Amino acid sequence: MVVTESFIRVRYAETDQMGVVYHANFLVWMEIGRTDYCRMCGFRYAEMEQEAGARLAVTSVQCRYLAPARYDDDILIRTWVSDLRSRQVIFHYTIHQVNTQHLIAEGETIHTVTNQDGKLMRFPQKYFDLLSNG
Amino acid sequence: MVVTESFIRVRYAETDQMGVVYHANFLVWMEIGRTDYCRMCGFRYAEMEQEAGARLAVTSVQCRYLAPARYDDDILIRTWVSDLRSRQVIFHYTIHQVNTQHLIAEGETIHTVTNQDGKLMRFPQKYFDLLSNG
Amino acid sequence: MVVTESFIRVRYAETDQMGVVYHANFLVWMEIGRTDYCRMCGFRYAEMEQEAGARLAVTSVQCRYLAPARYDDDILIRTWVSDLRSRQVIFHYTIHQVNTQHLIAEGETIHTVTNQDGKLMRFPQKYFDLLSNG
Amino acid sequence: MVVTESFIRVRYAETDQMGVVYHANFLVWMEIGRTDYCRMCGFRYAEMEQEAGARLAVTSVQCRYLAPARYDDDILIRTWVSDLRSRQVIFHYTIHQVNTQHLIAEGETIHTVTNQDGKLMRFPQKYFDLLSNG
Repeated sequence: MVVTESFIRVRYAETDQMGVVYHANFLVWMEIGRTDYCRMCGFRYAEMEQEAGARLAVTSVQCRYLAPARYDDDILIRTWVSDLRSRQVIFHYTIHQVNTQHLIAEGETIHTVTNQDGKLMRFPQKYFDLLSNG
Repeated sequence: MVVTESFIRVRYAETDQMGVVYHANFLVWMEIGRTDYCRMCGFRYAEMEQEAGARLAVTSVQCRYLAPARYDDDILIRTWVSDLRSRQVIFHYTIHQVNTQHLIAEGETIHTVTNQDGKLMRFPQKYFDLLSNG
Repeated sequence: MVVTESFIRVRYAETDQMGVVYHANFLVWMEIGRTDYCRMCGFRYAEMEQEAGARLAVTSVQCRYLAPARYDDDILIRTWVSDLRSRQVIFHYTIHQVNTQHLIAEGETIHTVTNQDGKLMRFPQKYFDLLSNG
Repeated sequence: MVVTESFIRVRYAETDQMGVVYHANFLVWMEIGRTDYCRMCGFRYAEMEQEAGARLAVTSVQCRYLAPARYDDDILIRTWVSDLRSRQVIFHYTIHQVNTQHLIAEGETIHTVTNQDGKLMRFPQKYFDLLSNG
């Protein structure tokens, strides 16, 4: 199983008045993980959108929050594919605070493949193969 | 069971290059639903934070996406409490596109009660009672 | 001179750890003002994008911040056009906290008209006339 | 004059339905530049907030947009201080697309120093000196 590691630093804009990262931003971080996962598989997600007209629409998201993240924290996002089918892919993520090494969140997103009009389609073979070899 | 209805209109800023609302924004909409739910129960969430020092930290979120939302769409968020305990509350949400009346998403958030330092605490009795009478 | 009034309530997601609205969100509010201004002129901005393929690209933004906005505040955005030419439009905005009636920000955005590929173009006559009659 | 260089990669969440980065996000990028500028001066901005209770409230922002940024683009933010006084600091920014080396935006933010209650104060001497030596 292949796992990508992405590093980000928490932005001020990502905090809320509780003094911690607003929870919806963890979904943005997962998407950074997906982008890096695709790149590691040998393609840019942007290229799959443009060249093959194929998009990974999110149909389901889950996230469990275990500890807060704070402004300027260094964050590690680990991303892997737990299920890959001709019309669907499931990504898993763990999110760690780098200094403390604490697991602060884990999550999953389910995606179907759609064309530019939002119609369901099969994975273009090239990208299915690239993801398979992860 | 009490259900709150919140209406919003999709902002340009909420769309992404797929031409639809970026999925993380549905979590922001759920939070608008929670704010209105508290108001309907007779208190402002901001007041609970300031006066009782109690916060509802998100520990888990789930969202299923059934259809896209688009810029300038009118959106209806329905919010209700499915479980209320001394230290935890679970909110459920359905999100509809108003014109088509289509259900476009449904979700759930689980919250624990914490003080301003993030320590777990029990619901202040006043707010527990207000939410109970929902 | 025609002025549109838009009302919003501050979202939790819009605050930052300073306990006030993150400054970039005022630009999002200005865009809500623009959307309502277009609607008052008799067209939906989304429709101008889709039907005429014309977009208002932001080429310059200015905002002065006079006082903070806070979670759950009711906010009034006033929007008007200060200059309209065949290839450019300038919008002005004032932003007030409704309860205190304090002016909390004022700003300006300059836009050029572009097609879907980002090329400069003239205003489609229909939309120029609608904005002129504002 | 000291100039900081910050590199980011455009996130999918930062795009809008025009297919380019939503303009308000450039303000978020400028704040990343400020954070790095402070770090280069020998302190963490988060530390100034926590230890000295001093914050840099944005009182004015200007941004000129020269060309769009797109998903997955590598972006370079250059940041410097153009004016530093006992109660105010002005930051300037240029933003480049790395591959094309095109200048895509430039901007300026003006900040006053406030305490945690939003009251104006003088720069804590330590941080004024650190910024002076840039």
